[in-house]
Amino acid sequence: MSTVAPTSLQSEQPPIITAPFSANQPATIRLYPLSNYTFGVKETQPEEDPSVLARLQRLEEHYEKHGMRRTCEGVLICHEHNHPHVLMLQIANAFFKLPGDYLRPDDEEISGFKARLDERLAPVGSLADGNKEGDWQIGDCLAQWWRPNAETFMYPFVPAHITRPKECKKLYMIQLPETKVLSVPKNMKLLAVPLFELYDNTQRYGPQLSAIPHLLSRYNFEFVDENGKVVAQTPNCDYEGREQQRAMRPKVKVLAGEDVEMKTEGENSAEIKQEGDLTVEALNIEKQNGTH
Amino acid sequence: MSTVAPTSLQSEQPPIITAPFSANQPATIRLYPLSNYTFGVKETQPEEDPSVLARLQRLEEHYEKHGMRRTCEGVLICHEHNHPHVLMLQIANAFFKLPGDYLRPDDEEISGFKARLDERLAPVGSLADGNKEGDWQIGDCLAQWWRPNAETFMYPFVPAHITRPKECKKLYMIQLPETKVLSVPKNMKLLAVPLFELYDNTQRYGPQLSAIPHLLSRYNFEFVDENGKVVAQTPNCDYEGREQQRAMRPKVKVLAGEDVEMKTEGENSAEIKQEGDLTVEALNIEKQNGTH
Repeated sequence: MSTVAPTSLQSEQPPIITAPFSANQPATIRLYPLSNYTFGVKETQPEEDPSVLARLQRLEEHYEKHGMRRTCEGVLICHEHNHPHVLMLQIANAFFKLPGDYLRPDDEEISGFKARLDERLAPVGSLADGNKEGDWQIGDCLAQWWRPNAETFMYPFVPAHITRPKECKKLYMIQLPETKVLSVPKNMKLLAVPLFELYDNTQRYGPQLSAIPHLLSRYNFEFVDENGKVVAQTPNCDYEGREQQRAMRPKVKVLAGEDVEMKTEGENSAEIKQEGDLTVEALNIEKQNGTH
Repeated sequence: MSTVAPTSLQSEQPPIITAPFSANQPATIRLYPLSNYTFGVKETQPEEDPSVLARLQRLEEHYEKHGMRRTCEGVLICHEHNHPHVLMLQIANAFFKLPGDYLRPDDEEISGFKARLDERLAPVGSLADGNKEGDWQIGDCLAQWWRPNAETFMYPFVPAHITRPKECKKLYMIQLPETKVLSVPKNMKLLAVPLFELYDNTQRYGPQLSAIPHLLSRYNFEFVDENGKVVAQTPNCDYEGREQQRAMRPKVKVLAGEDVEMKTEGENSAEIKQEGDLTVEALNIEKQNGTH
């Protein structure tokens, strides 16, 4: 198995194909290159609260009036060099956050979340031509973080002895379409952060963002280039593709002569095996001349 | 919202019910108390390799012959005091591991995994009476870990520039039935480790096990007591239950007198609101006498 897409394989030593290994996984996610997206700038969006203390105070007031605060954030992913990257906002060159916000008490979950995403990232002015409202594909819930008290720490579970948490923050997978225009408030930077940068990097990104690689690891990805061709993928992602790879494997091309169906011993024996039973045997052809 | 199940609520100050917040989440997982399960002992199962070096050597040989190694591990969960616990093996009082193992090259993924779980945990002797083979409910894939080289480190993504990883380890959710008999090899301990113990504890449990709380955070749980009654749950888990809670909320009981339908002002106004639109308003009844 290999990360190189079957149709892009050029090696003279193709990888050994193992038995399928994609049971009980979600559908493969298609990622487009970062360069497919257009980024604009829009008006500054100041912080709602002047300090962390003020924010917690406001949370407390919210809880008294409306109950637990519901917060939604999106994990928007694309790729650079066939590695997944997560879009993230950086505020005042300091802290990082995912696009999203808390819902108003009466908001329906998904439509309320889409409105919050629009506020933050939807294009304005001429960039917004042809742009629909709430044009976000909200996917699976990836994680829930619980705030037990009106304090700064949150946990990915409801801590023992806590019966009434003050806030629940949900992270959702958001699959980006092939192209999209995004506008970023002037006081924020939009970053594409690779998974390997987030992984094991609590120090820089905090416990929530640095856990994103874990949350995404159950997905298989396919990486599409600017021409829409799948050029890479998670190795065990697409078993049919593997079968295709086997068929398309570079072979000796007979340029002149009679024996057009020239078969190597290895291929022959493999075919016999396949007729006998349906288990797919790894082919062990020692050497093979490529055509590329 | 509260972790106390609607039918178990005894507070005179019921929590404020917020609008629904369970979109795009997997089905709620029912957890049974640890005391529902029976544990036996079986023959020692020695390690296949005498050292880490020998194990990596064997992996290399496997790769040469059969391609990428496929490994399956199970996250078996139950609860103690209404907090999720993960079942884990401890070998030689030293390192921790999830039940599971690598698949043989021809094994089908799920049936091969079930066979490996049976080897490790299925009961033997009189305990095994009435036990079926492969009686495991293999749920969602929770994570994939990739081993880029025949070395000890693994990552929850395929690292950049790696085209042919040597091993893929998949973790699956395994929902335990209401009761079950498990047998543990004599040289291992079986532990039930709470999520709060695993969380942020890479030092003791390593990067894979300490990430389990993240992987489980998107699930809502309901906790069942030994009599099969739901006594606790993730706060936003079951919205219908919330509606039920609203109906069952302790109310002033009229013991004698005419005005049997005695209504407080708050209730009245809430009802009017509900007729007008379908958004569920949090009820703000200042004080209410309980009946428990």
